[in-house]
Amino acid sequence: MSNDLDFEGWVCPLPLRDTPTIVMGHGGGGAMSGELIEQLFLPAYGGAARAELGDSAVLSVPAGRLAFSTDSFVVKPMFFPGGSIGDLAVNGTVNDLAMAGATPLFLSTAFILAEGTALSDIGRVATALGKAAEVAGVQLVTGDTKVVDSGSGDGVFVNTAGIGVVADGVEIGPARARVGDAVIVSGDIGVHGIAVMSCREGLEFGTTVVSDTAPLHGLVAEMLATGIDVRVLRDPTRGGVAATLNEIARASGVGIELVERDLPVPAEVKDACGLLGLDPLQVANEGKLLAVVPADRAEELLAAMHRHPLGSGARRIGRCVAEHPRMVVARTGLGGTRVVDLPIGEQLPRIC
Amino acid sequence: MSNDLDFEGWVCPLPLRDTPTIVMGHGGGGAMSGELIEQLFLPAYGGAARAELGDSAVLSVPAGRLAFSTDSFVVKPMFFPGGSIGDLAVNGTVNDLAMAGATPLFLSTAFILAEGTALSDIGRVATALGKAAEVAGVQLVTGDTKVVDSGSGDGVFVNTAGIGVVADGVEIGPARARVGDAVIVSGDIGVHGIAVMSCREGLEFGTTVVSDTAPLHGLVAEMLATGIDVRVLRDPTRGGVAATLNEIARASGVGIELVERDLPVPAEVKDACGLLGLDPLQVANEGKLLAVVPADRAEELLAAMHRHPLGSGARRIGRCVAEHPRMVVARTGLGGTRVVDLPIGEQLPRIC
Repeated sequence: MSNDLDFEGWVCPLPLRDTPTIVMGHGGGGAMSGELIEQLFLPAYGGAARAELGDSAVLSVPAGRLAFSTDSFVVKPMFFPGGSIGDLAVNGTVNDLAMAGATPLFLSTAFILAEGTALSDIGRVATALGKAAEVAGVQLVTGDTKVVDSGSGDGVFVNTAGIGVVADGVEIGPARARVGDAVIVSGDIGVHGIAVMSCREGLEFGTTVVSDTAPLHGLVAEMLATGIDVRVLRDPTRGGVAATLNEIARASGVGIELVERDLPVPAEVKDACGLLGLDPLQVANEGKLLAVVPADRAEELLAAMHRHPLGSGARRIGRCVAEHPRMVVARTGLGGTRVVDLPIGEQLPRIC
Repeated sequence: MSNDLDFEGWVCPLPLRDTPTIVMGHGGGGAMSGELIEQLFLPAYGGAARAELGDSAVLSVPAGRLAFSTDSFVVKPMFFPGGSIGDLAVNGTVNDLAMAGATPLFLSTAFILAEGTALSDIGRVATALGKAAEVAGVQLVTGDTKVVDSGSGDGVFVNTAGIGVVADGVEIGPARARVGDAVIVSGDIGVHGIAVMSCREGLEFGTTVVSDTAPLHGLVAEMLATGIDVRVLRDPTRGGVAATLNEIARASGVGIELVERDLPVPAEVKDACGLLGLDPLQVANEGKLLAVVPADRAEELLAAMHRHPLGSGARRIGRCVAEHPRMVVARTGLGGTRVVDLPIGEQLPRIC
């Protein structure tokens, strides 16, 4: 930013305004806060943003049911192979809405910026966020920016909240899985987590894995258009497939049995997990979904999923069983079974 | 938390679970994340929370217009005279909705917690948040929790997003002020900012000032019930009355003239501002609003405001003028005028 910033005709005389980094004043609600919105966020967001991007937005929505969701993103580093915290901030919340069967419409964006963060980095994040919103077809309608002193926060934290519309008749929920249902995954697992870990400070390892971050509501729309009773949809982010299936098993009171050889784990993910001592089932994904559907409609649903680019790798990975209710087990290649636990804590910090 | 945590029948054997503080595992999306929600957030929120508090909520709303808003809260210290970051997180977003003329209905809550933060502090914040939501009559419907390593964030950051319903015929916006309109404030100014500063590390000074944090939608409902064309409503938070009036003047293209002797500045705020070299007009408020209304209805509106506890100190402080468009001036006691600038940066960090 140069010294000739023109804020509605008023040229700032202060050398402070030459700063290439965030200073406390950007969070003060005064002229510098206004400049940050006018000169950085709005241009970076591009066509995805409402022109005013004010404290609140007034929206027209159809009568009926809305889905409402929120997520904060603290991933480190903020740029990683295949994406950035800006992409995640859109896709994470869009996908939470999609998993309720909703069509996402509106997002809020709230940034917590650490003093000293480069404005160019924030610009790159905001540009990625705007592009991801355009791709997902959601409008950025309201926002907030706070600045914290260095040492109190680092880099960029982003929160998004989203509103979507749920069509009549759509009833999706984690408690709806029934014994006999098929468990389906939309594609390769473990990719996002390994992509982020591969460039984490002190943990660099060479890999060609790039994050799978993507908005899933288009794929969900294809699935719902079949008319099949999709009982459960979830995106297996933090805690991976293991955490998500355990939650479904507990909420529905069924057992879940996976067939290990049917799990789509790319070779690079398998190798990296071996190196790091991780279970691919516990590694985070950002552009994948798990679905539980009646077994007799599973092939039909898979055919529909295969027609969508984000579902081309969809496959059946297991089924809901009456045995071991509320527990997930995997049948191993050797004919034995192992328990797939809910992870207790975290494998490695900050991947979404 | 004790060693006999019972998570759906499963007793944790790890000494880690004895921790009285946040550890990275609480943000991992696994068992510890579940425990934090089940055993801390849900009990603390009490009746204000939906039982499931999941990744997303499906809500029934009437057709028409919705207001949507978001705010992050990073106030330091997290407890201050008259409130906490938990109260602010509810009232801040409720008030952004109220300033659009909306009745607030639903809030999301997203916490970013630093490793090492005492669980008891988080419990106190969440309890205050739940109580404030009950007072404001809003439901906490969806949430998120992330943990960042110590040194990357400190204590507790909270984001809330909110949805409210805007009644037909309500048209409130910062660009609607007209020459001749009266400018009204709902009560004493500068109170919240001084209350927070009074207990800031390294800045302690004795004062009896307590934060004015409060939800304002009840007062707004009384104002709108008069049928008076309330043109602009804004809560003067960061940047204070000065920032808010400058924004209104710029958006509406009018000048605003304040009468300095009519500004309700409590003696303690005046004293503290003198000590710290601050302009009370630039100090943050959390439970006050500014209204711009047709001058011929101002007395009638003030009478309605006086009937509400949060409007008992309401008074006229100025008017919109054709002179000096897009600029705010104050007439001083000596008959002169001074320009009331949009603050450039920030007086002191983190007051909301």
